[in-house]
Amino acid sequence: MQRKLLAVDWGTSSLRGALMSSDGMIQEKRAFPQGILQVAHGQFQHVFEQRFGDWMTAETLCLISGMAGSRQGWREAPYCPAPCGFEDISHHLQWIEKERIGLVPGLSTFNDNTPDVMRGEEIQIFGALNSLQTGTAQFVLPGTHSKWAQVSGSKITAFKTFMTGEFYALLSQHSILAKTCLPDAPWKKEIFLDGIIQSQKSGGLLHHAFSARSLALFEKLNPAQSSSYISGLLIGEEIKSAASGPTNSNAPLFILGNSQLTQRYACALEAFGMTAQTLTDEITWTGLWALASHLYPSDFKLS
Amino acid sequence: MQRKLLAVDWGTSSLRGALMSSDGMIQEKRAFPQGILQVAHGQFQHVFEQRFGDWMTAETLCLISGMAGSRQGWREAPYCPAPCGFEDISHHLQWIEKERIGLVPGLSTFNDNTPDVMRGEEIQIFGALNSLQTGTAQFVLPGTHSKWAQVSGSKITAFKTFMTGEFYALLSQHSILAKTCLPDAPWKKEIFLDGIIQSQKSGGLLHHAFSARSLALFEKLNPAQSSSYISGLLIGEEIKSAASGPTNSNAPLFILGNSQLTQRYACALEAFGMTAQTLTDEITWTGLWALASHLYPSDFKLS
Repeated sequence: MQRKLLAVDWGTSSLRGALMSSDGMIQEKRAFPQGILQVAHGQFQHVFEQRFGDWMTAETLCLISGMAGSRQGWREAPYCPAPCGFEDISHHLQWIEKERIGLVPGLSTFNDNTPDVMRGEEIQIFGALNSLQTGTAQFVLPGTHSKWAQVSGSKITAFKTFMTGEFYALLSQHSILAKTCLPDAPWKKEIFLDGIIQSQKSGGLLHHAFSARSLALFEKLNPAQSSSYISGLLIGEEIKSAASGPTNSNAPLFILGNSQLTQRYACALEAFGMTAQTLTDEITWTGLWALASHLYPSDFKLS
Repeated sequence: MQRKLLAVDWGTSSLRGALMSSDGMIQEKRAFPQGILQVAHGQFQHVFEQRFGDWMTAETLCLISGMAGSRQGWREAPYCPAPCGFEDISHHLQWIEKERIGLVPGLSTFNDNTPDVMRGEEIQIFGALNSLQTGTAQFVLPGTHSKWAQVSGSKITAFKTFMTGEFYALLSQHSILAKTCLPDAPWKKEIFLDGIIQSQKSGGLLHHAFSARSLALFEKLNPAQSSSYISGLLIGEEIKSAASGPTNSNAPLFILGNSQLTQRYACALEAFGMTAQTLTDEITWTGLWALASHLYPSDFKLS
């Protein structure tokens, strides 16, 4: 019997699934706007069956990463403390049905005694490590809540969250800066770099954010430029803060994310004199397949 | 003829006026929820007459500070560039009616080639200088957009804006942190200081803001505490950033604002080992009266 993997990424605002063959090839994909915030309490099983029931034949293993494993999700898969590797994750799956439908746990860590968490990004990182065949690296995963993670000995040893994407939405749509900002204007590299440069001056983010207002008052920044400038301010602040912390400074740096964001981060990192390779967030499927292969090596293997 | 001063503070969200005698005593005050955002284009004269027309007798001089002098206000009173003193302000009043109704201009400055502005705070600072009989000081004016200003030789020589109050509203009411935050919970000094301490660790505001989320997930911060913690994170970030810039470090520091905010700032500054005296924002009336006295020294003088 040829086994199959149903790899599911069930996040806050979307539900995506990929049906994969035992050798890791993607056969079919589905996506629904049914993140955990859109699913009523007690309805997770129902939604899952409705969306993927036809794929759940006797030979199918299903592994689910993301917010479905949070307290507000299908069932809580408690955080695994970092340092954490594939081995640790695989021992702490939360099985909805034993050896058939498993929730991948997130990771927790402490930065200077303060907790931090990730849920969903860990499987992308493990997917990247598997794909790159390396055990030492640094990762940036840009997004609503960006993550910077350190990997050595094939374990995620430390990570930090930055609320960069959420601050961008708040400032460009809900603050006084929104009055002079077209949030959907095309990205302008030069203006973005102006924001990066501003973010490195003394004064901090609370001060620099106001420069988007004062530059507009002085007609040095127009509404079509403002979103690129604010994006530069925030990504510049993130990189400055992340790069000043403890890092595997010799380890290669990878950006995992959608192409729009990875382009901005690559540009910003270059301005800091840092180099990084880019990987797409489709690496989630690679990560879940690698986990299946780790759990059942004889069933899931490269042909 | 005994002259009178109608001192008006016309801000973004409120309109306040005080009728003052020639010797600086307040005779009567009025306040209306009619900030410039609530007044339709072309209706400023009408609203002014409706609210204060009965006070505008032949002997009354009216001076108006705040956003009424902005481009979106009654009429634009262009910014005076810092360094700027009382003398400069008085030469650049925008007269709606010559020598009868005058708009006080705001101030502009450049921080490392980037413009910054204030409008309304300058008159509070000049009021404080007049009241304190000093020409050398530093001021913090907490609020939606906090200002830190340096004064020497009786002139405002430099200042910086921090969007602290606005970030607080965005984070506590509109971000993911709002899910575990009661924004109107009473202020808790110890939790506020926890936020101050966190803000001084490495990682920056984008990272520290997320700690309000992760601490809540780990049940180390409850919704009634969260607002004090977020307030501490932001005010700590503001003070760290402001104090690291160029300051008249030997000049005494004053906090001008409402009692709720000045209490928080005094507590935070103490945690930084800094001392500050507190003045109320009623100092606006003192500032406008001092300006009247500067313009017409024989009409407005202390008895």
